Amino acid sequence: MNNKQILVSEVGPRDGLQSIDSILPTEIKKQWILALANAGIQEIEVGSFVPKSLIPQLADTAEIVKYAITIPNLTVAALVPNLKGAINAIKSGAHKISIPFSTSETHSIKNVNKNHKQMIEEIKKISDYILENNHNTHLEVALATAFGCSIIGEIPEDLVISLAEQIMKAGSKEIVLSDTTGYGDPSKVRKLVRKLKATIGDSKLNSIHLHNTRGLGLANAFAAIEEGITIIDSSISGIGGCPFAPGASGNIVTEDLVFMLDAMGFDTGIDLDKLFSIRDILSKALPDEPLYGYTANAGLPLGYKH
Amino acid sequence: MNNKQILVSEVGPRDGLQSIDSILPTEIKKQWILALANAGIQEIEVGSFVPKSLIPQLADTAEIVKYAITIPNLTVAALVPNLKGAINAIKSGAHKISIPFSTSETHSIKNVNKNHKQMIEEIKKISDYILENNHNTHLEVALATAFGCSIIGEIPEDLVISLAEQIMKAGSKEIVLSDTTGYGDPSKVRKLVRKLKATIGDSKLNSIHLHNTRGLGLANAFAAIEEGITIIDSSISGIGGCPFAPGASGNIVTEDLVFMLDAMGFDTGIDLDKLFSIRDILSKALPDEPLYGYTANAGLPLGYKH
Repeated sequence: MNNKQILVSEVGPRDGLQSIDSILPTEIKKQWILALANAGIQEIEVGSFVPKSLIPQLADTAEIVKYAITIPNLTVAALVPNLKGAINAIKSGAHKISIPFSTSETHSIKNVNKNHKQMIEEIKKISDYILENNHNTHLEVALATAFGCSIIGEIPEDLVISLAEQIMKAGSKEIVLSDTTGYGDPSKVRKLVRKLKATIGDSKLNSIHLHNTRGLGLANAFAAIEEGITIIDSSISGIGGCPFAPGASGNIVTEDLVFMLDAMGFDTGIDLDKLFSIRDILSKALPDEPLYGYTANAGLPLGYKH
Repeated sequence: MNNKQILVSEVGPRDGLQSIDSILPTEIKKQWILALANAGIQEIEVGSFVPKSLIPQLADTAEIVKYAITIPNLTVAALVPNLKGAINAIKSGAHKISIPFSTSETHSIKNVNKNHKQMIEEIKKISDYILENNHNTHLEVALATAFGCSIIGEIPEDLVISLAEQIMKAGSKEIVLSDTTGYGDPSKVRKLVRKLKATIGDSKLNSIHLHNTRGLGLANAFAAIEEGITIIDSSISGIGGCPFAPGASGNIVTEDLVFMLDAMGFDTGIDLDKLFSIRDILSKALPDEPLYGYTANAGLPLGYKH
């Protein structure tokens, strides 16, 4: 497993911030994003292009994107729920846009007020917009609640597969497998990654988005890597979650994930000590929010070689 | 991976209690152990036969063993550092005795005041005592700090293998691989389990003892299972740690481990709801101790089928 690269895609500024009440000042967000990039993080989902009334914490996303694209060697991603959001993201200069598509139709309606058919149509519109305007923006669709939904329960594997096929046909370049609710386990992750890769093509599923709701996040990440996943979403200090999926707390913790990958011999390009020091920015800016993760507090193993 | 059995060996009453200052009353320990057995736990390490002055929290181990062996279908294990402890454990009726053998000689001297040579001699004495007295007590040796030591750092893999061979020759029936310090990662676990099984025999390494010091505990457990490990130590609510290895906090959490195994289709024989309810006993008995783990608080997935 040596000499392989894994891209850690930081989602704290989007998935983290949207789930907490505090609104982080724009200047602090910029400082935070720069510190992440300086620690070696190469991709950051910096916000969502959604109405300010829905997620006021992310109201400054356009400004944040415009700032983040000035940082060298950083891929700037943004979440967009619809064509309007996509156009705004593209105009701001986002390199990558991610559309959340909930495999649970009930959750989809609650989350973005669209059923599956309407979502597929929206993806087609966004894909067409990108093609017609000759933009290089990378379009990916995140298959949310793919391991189960906290409103309706189990999601049949066949439905996930079939939706992924429809999404790819509608023009998405890539699928992200999302365990929004922390219902996944290593066996299910392994099975679904394998099936999806076999159906939509190995190169069309590279990313997984995991929550640590039941403590299995890193075990799931390990299983995903073993199935060929090379991009893993995580949130620094584990802040985050989905406000519309009850009980769906916290993304996996970037610090612990990077330690795991680094210890296993994967190249992430990230400096662990610099990464740990970002906790100071967060604890000062968000003093009432708990910071998760173990490695930063425990410290690296004695004699640890990066 | 279906239809396979994994034995979850609870170490909270030993590894958990020895690391906290509070001394749990004997009657509460008995209530706790009974509740664990009633939830379906089939093996519990109930204490240590060490001088009361060293670990006063476990001073009642003999009485606890005598009580625990009256519970049907429960394997009662106890930790013993030397022949004297082993004799006391056997006289109390313990089914299984576990000798901690630190692969870090410095840690061994600090922990049990014996170097490697003296430890091998002690194992031989204990093995001989069991043979000569025709006891059925199962003797296992836990290879502590096998993934690194927080006092001296890295432990060469070849040393771990060589010590395991000497320990088996000295009369141990089995080796337990212990990540005392939480230095392990899934790759190292996989590699060391594979090498050890190849050296001492597949059936002589069945157990792993993991700490969640850097959050990788369940990922390591998953890797171990994939290499054929069938017995996993864990501590209910994650209480525990090794007081003589600085920074070595908390065993992996029984509730989250059992959820992972159950969700993956393994048969543990454990009832998750009954297991979760044991947290009430602990929070009442140890009100100042934090309880770890995620699954009990998050709840089982909606529509979850055991």
